[in-house]
Amino acid sequence: MPIMSTRDEVLATNELFYRAFRDRDHALMSSLLATTAPVAVIHPGWRALAGREEVLASWRAIFRNPRAPEVHCRNPLVFLMGDSALVICTEELTEGSLVATNVYVREEEGWRLSHHHAGPGEGVPPDPDAGPGGVLH
Amino acid sequence: MPIMSTRDEVLATNELFYRAFRDRDHALMSSLLATTAPVAVIHPGWRALAGREEVLASWRAIFRNPRAPEVHCRNPLVFLMGDSALVICTEELTEGSLVATNVYVREEEGWRLSHHHAGPGEGVPPDPDAGPGGVLH
Repeated sequence: MPIMSTRDEVLATNELFYRAFRDRDHALMSSLLATTAPVAVIHPGWRALAGREEVLASWRAIFRNPRAPEVHCRNPLVFLMGDSALVICTEELTEGSLVATNVYVREEEGWRLSHHHAGPGEGVPPDPDAGPGGVLH
Repeated sequence: MPIMSTRDEVLATNELFYRAFRDRDHALMSSLLATTAPVAVIHPGWRALAGREEVLASWRAIFRNPRAPEVHCRNPLVFLMGDSALVICTEELTEGSLVATNVYVREEEGWRLSHHHAGPGEGVPPDPDAGPGGVLH
């Protein structure tokens, strides 16, 4: 069996994260959250939440919501930074898309999620000559 | 002179980042961006941009915009992860606030910005019993 590259390891964990999300699998989500490193999350429009308990409670609330969308991670960009890694991707939802930043850390059991930040994204490149348009920062 | 803690070093770099932002100081912003590690940015509502050239072009566009807001970083939460670090904070603007994730990496010259992601945030805690309300994820 070929040995996975670090990049593929991170992407595999990232895929598991989105599977937990789609399947509303709280046990899987819990197992993917870092246990040694600190954890946080910024859901779209929410304030930042920190700590395993608060972060897991937020996922529980999302999983309970019947309107929670199906979500897929597209075009992931992976930054490897030693024992941490960044995955930046477009989140395709049932209606529209978001952009996400996921921060992973290498723990004893493998790569684990330290931070997830998702928010609105236009899906089109800004035109630098036109200025940032309606969105100022 | 007391030696700065790693946390204070990261916060000092984070403060410089927001100073560059407020002062529209392109040279300072450029000097704060990582040179060895990869760089990316997600401005509110924009798609993710990657690479120094594209990221710096986006800051140039924002600095040119006369409507660009004054921004201050409040209540920073710092995660130290070896040679990388995360700062999660509320961005107070002239009108309203955003939430931001800033990823720093330790390079030869010190801590440098690898990734900045800012987006809308309510500034109030979600009520898990009520579900995530209008914002589904």
